[in-house]
Amino acid sequence: MRIRFYNARIITMADNDFVEGELWTEDDRIIYVGAGKPNDISWDRQIDCKRNVLMPGLKNAHTHSAMTFSRSLADEYSLNDWLFKAIFPREAKLTPEHVYWYSKLAYAEYLAGGITSCFDMYFHLNESARAAVETGFRLVFCDSANDFGGIDELEDNYNTFNSFDPLVSFRLGFHAEYTTSEKNMKYVSELAHKYEAPVFTHISETRDEVEGCRQRYGVTPAVLIDRLGIFDYGGGGFHCVWFTDEDRELFRSKGLWSVFNACSNLKLGSGITPVYKFMNSDMKVAIGTDGAGSNNSLSMLREMYLDTVLSNAETGDAASVDPLRILKAGTSGGALCMGLNDCDVLAAGKKADIVMIDMKKPSMQPENNIVRNIVYSADNSCVKMTMINGKILYENGEYTTVDIDEVIKNCNRMLSELV
Amino acid sequence: MRIRFYNARIITMADNDFVEGELWTEDDRIIYVGAGKPNDISWDRQIDCKRNVLMPGLKNAHTHSAMTFSRSLADEYSLNDWLFKAIFPREAKLTPEHVYWYSKLAYAEYLAGGITSCFDMYFHLNESARAAVETGFRLVFCDSANDFGGIDELEDNYNTFNSFDPLVSFRLGFHAEYTTSEKNMKYVSELAHKYEAPVFTHISETRDEVEGCRQRYGVTPAVLIDRLGIFDYGGGGFHCVWFTDEDRELFRSKGLWSVFNACSNLKLGSGITPVYKFMNSDMKVAIGTDGAGSNNSLSMLREMYLDTVLSNAETGDAASVDPLRILKAGTSGGALCMGLNDCDVLAAGKKADIVMIDMKKPSMQPENNIVRNIVYSADNSCVKMTMINGKILYENGEYTTVDIDEVIKNCNRMLSELV
Repeated sequence: MRIRFYNARIITMADNDFVEGELWTEDDRIIYVGAGKPNDISWDRQIDCKRNVLMPGLKNAHTHSAMTFSRSLADEYSLNDWLFKAIFPREAKLTPEHVYWYSKLAYAEYLAGGITSCFDMYFHLNESARAAVETGFRLVFCDSANDFGGIDELEDNYNTFNSFDPLVSFRLGFHAEYTTSEKNMKYVSELAHKYEAPVFTHISETRDEVEGCRQRYGVTPAVLIDRLGIFDYGGGGFHCVWFTDEDRELFRSKGLWSVFNACSNLKLGSGITPVYKFMNSDMKVAIGTDGAGSNNSLSMLREMYLDTVLSNAETGDAASVDPLRILKAGTSGGALCMGLNDCDVLAAGKKADIVMIDMKKPSMQPENNIVRNIVYSADNSCVKMTMINGKILYENGEYTTVDIDEVIKNCNRMLSELV
Repeated sequence: MRIRFYNARIITMADNDFVEGELWTEDDRIIYVGAGKPNDISWDRQIDCKRNVLMPGLKNAHTHSAMTFSRSLADEYSLNDWLFKAIFPREAKLTPEHVYWYSKLAYAEYLAGGITSCFDMYFHLNESARAAVETGFRLVFCDSANDFGGIDELEDNYNTFNSFDPLVSFRLGFHAEYTTSEKNMKYVSELAHKYEAPVFTHISETRDEVEGCRQRYGVTPAVLIDRLGIFDYGGGGFHCVWFTDEDRELFRSKGLWSVFNACSNLKLGSGITPVYKFMNSDMKVAIGTDGAGSNNSLSMLREMYLDTVLSNAETGDAASVDPLRILKAGTSGGALCMGLNDCDVLAAGKKADIVMIDMKKPSMQPENNIVRNIVYSADNSCVKMTMINGKILYENGEYTTVDIDEVIKNCNRMLSELV
């Protein structure tokens, strides 16, 4: 199956950032990006982009997809109460069927928001993987093992979900320092060394978490986890709100990923990440939505906007953070963070994970600067098409693989089973 | 023309906040809201709402509509440089034709975002009024008179635009204390007394502005303006970021409106309004987007979300601000602030300014709490229909009165005339 996109403006995220012209896909890959047509080949479908923008799909580099069950639930709690009073009791009741449907709802939301893959931390992995493959969604698991479960299955999961389906992969991970004993963290470190694999975890999300770690170990979570050898083959942390300068230098020097979750941190009262401090160096940054319970939307566009402007309140400087750098963090940055090295840019040979931005939306006009229009002003209404692995899964508001009525019906029916 | 909406869930914003059933309009008015059908009358069109939500249109209570020309322009400047280096030189070149087209672009964006009226502060009023009437958009002017212009025309404008068209009205206003001499402010006060009319102005947007006023007059802008008698017949202020407790008590006790502009303040590095301090009392609050140059989107949904969560960073409390209170501020609050006393709630006899929220969007599901879904998670993609004065102006992504291609073409063509 060969698809020709023509009359497009293409933000490649590669070195030649902007191309006016054509993009061709064949099966799961991009085969051509350039000003004219490739020579001597034909297409099965051609799409007139009408000067709309093509760019790499957004990568949601930290989420808990199946937590859509908890959207707008117990919004009045801060992180600790929210977890222990509202979320954990319901999660104890979650069946594989629940995870299947609530994950599908999240994937539908991702597609509507131009998100082509997510770095998903949850349980009943088999069911979210099944939902992803059915949907055609590209899913990367990050394990959430901790003292309450998952440590024993971690190695099996690593092997199972790295050979489950071409759309699914798995990275080592654990929930957080504050939920995982030193013994269990040392085991994670052993696996990291055995498989020469990166490891990801929640890190410095709240001030209390950092303070608790200091009391337990005398150092910050980032320093502790590094000392345990967990980061010896790379990896990174989610949230990073309360990083010290030393933590940032550690992450920079080891090439570890800092993944921002601005909406979740704001809502739960955890704080505002000083994104600008991560931008004035060669740090690796990516962006995620966190789960729907704490965000509550799953919009990467809203995250990118906030990562660009939130620092300004502290600095008083309207240019604290470069919007193009944030768009790269939300696309190619996320891809590399998740190990999707073929999904980072639009270029021949790369996977065809592509979003079309609708430049006919008033918020995308006039065209003083298209990248800034996207980062400062786009929302899901500006997403005209989402393609993953060469398949168009969302186009003009319609899904090609998701029966959204059935998803909504099941998700509402099951709420009563979680009380 | 009688329209029957049935199978709806209706957030009326009146005392009986939620109604499941029907809403009928006749010409420009709502004639019925209730569980069943009204007796013995027929309809010209009926719309199956399919359990989607109807609510009062959003009211953008502070904006500069025609500033769409400056979207994504000079995003790197803070307020002062942005005004003096980027905006004022271009505004000096703005013709009536520019204001006409750039206002139309803003109105199109409002309609796509469920906004049914705006409180607009700009110049070449005749052209923005003409664009509004052509569009069917409900426009309320707030004058921006200051030492650089507008004082001489203020009274004329008041009389002209309060009898221009049923869709257009005008409230007294001036730009700000820091751009308006005491003499000119006293003249505004005279007009307020002559017409027994409320007055609105920018107030305490930046820390520097408050400090400058203290140096010039020894008091805050709110206290000064009140002492000049300007607020004797009501009114209020835009931004209110740096209000003191005394300012808040003044506004509360006199029933003045505080209008929040979270996105603009964040972007320009002006600060974060402690919204929660305005919520724990009987203060009158409304919400606006400010202009596209400093926001950069014109989404009231994004504003409402931020007004609900931004305070949490300071308080550490996930429940700092009640989302229902914010939804009221963004709908009925704005209406009353702007003098649109017939546009505040959905009830028989009120104007038919109505929005339909698309509950089929994944971000609106599941339905743990519909109001919270809207405030925390909705974006323009969730706006299915916008009706103003009984006319459907936007439905399923299409405009009925705006030729969006022509608007976009003209807005881009004219950019080169403003360099």
